[in-house]
Amino acid sequence: MTIAENPVRNGVDTATLFATIDAVKGDPDIAKFRFRATNTWMSGTHNRSTIHGFHGAKQEMNHREPFTLDADHPPVLVGTDNGPTPVEYVLHALATCLMAGMANIAAARGIKLNSVNVAIEGDIDLRGILGISDKVRNGYENIRVTFDVDADAPPEKIRDLVAQSRDRSAVFDVVTRGVPVTITTKGA
Amino acid sequence: MTIAENPVRNGVDTATLFATIDAVKGDPDIAKFRFRATNTWMSGTHNRSTIHGFHGAKQEMNHREPFTLDADHPPVLVGTDNGPTPVEYVLHALATCLMAGMANIAAARGIKLNSVNVAIEGDIDLRGILGISDKVRNGYENIRVTFDVDADAPPEKIRDLVAQSRDRSAVFDVVTRGVPVTITTKGA
Repeated sequence: MTIAENPVRNGVDTATLFATIDAVKGDPDIAKFRFRATNTWMSGTHNRSTIHGFHGAKQEMNHREPFTLDADHPPVLVGTDNGPTPVEYVLHALATCLMAGMANIAAARGIKLNSVNVAIEGDIDLRGILGISDKVRNGYENIRVTFDVDADAPPEKIRDLVAQSRDRSAVFDVVTRGVPVTITTKGA
Repeated sequence: MTIAENPVRNGVDTATLFATIDAVKGDPDIAKFRFRATNTWMSGTHNRSTIHGFHGAKQEMNHREPFTLDADHPPVLVGTDNGPTPVEYVLHALATCLMAGMANIAAARGIKLNSVNVAIEGDIDLRGILGISDKVRNGYENIRVTFDVDADAPPEKIRDLVAQSRDRSAVFDVVTRGVPVTITTKGA
């Protein structure tokens, strides 16, 4: 077995990956995760999130450090450009989820990746969020992702990798199918 | 008019905000934006996005600097914790979009914000992405957002602000309603 002989591939510890899948099969509660972020308004469209703790594998855990992320609008959208826009973070979230899947799935299949790059773009008509037209949605009309993969595998295997990354992507599922979101306000 | 007397409120230049809306009403093509990101695989589930250029207001533009964002999985998910997970970036994107809306809408309505904090969390059963159960979706089952607002306004006005931020949020629309995503692979 190639996998047993060479357990770390593409930087993925495949032995631990398979052990994790086996552990979840034995106890589905291990798979129940709750992720969190907090966000604080700074000024105008500039605000800052902190991501640190999460629940998973039946325990509270922390990332090794609190991650801080700034977001803002650029001047053309009446902001001060202190960070990417919220909608650019959506593109990033989708690209990074597909990319993590590529690395894991290639490793599991014994395919060595040499380089992988993704370009992603989305079209949005801001008449929606500006309240100018009720016929225009607020969000992206469409999103396009282009993979550029150099791997020790023929084109059809690379296509299969990309397809499986899509089929096992949490963010692809969220972005294409939607999720129920509840918003509440403390004391109001 | 309060707005004319005090055009900058909550750090929002309301005069420019209203001028932007008027400009778009006069020429809808100004509102057509295309946002972009590129992502490069580093090792394992660690990868890095760059966000710099975008198209909008009928021209190519750049943020004042290229923004670089790392993503990874934590050790419990067989990663090396070099950044937030892709699904945490989704929470961040949603929180920051709602927050930017709050600031703009409060400014437009003449409401002074003293502080705004958002807590956001999402539940996900990883049996989906691990390929263990076809009955479990890959993405979040649900997302909850809690606003904590201190503003110079009565509770019902604050509730209205939060509701309008939701109703004009690009990322809320994407996350709750979904977007068509096309994935292609160069040369494969």
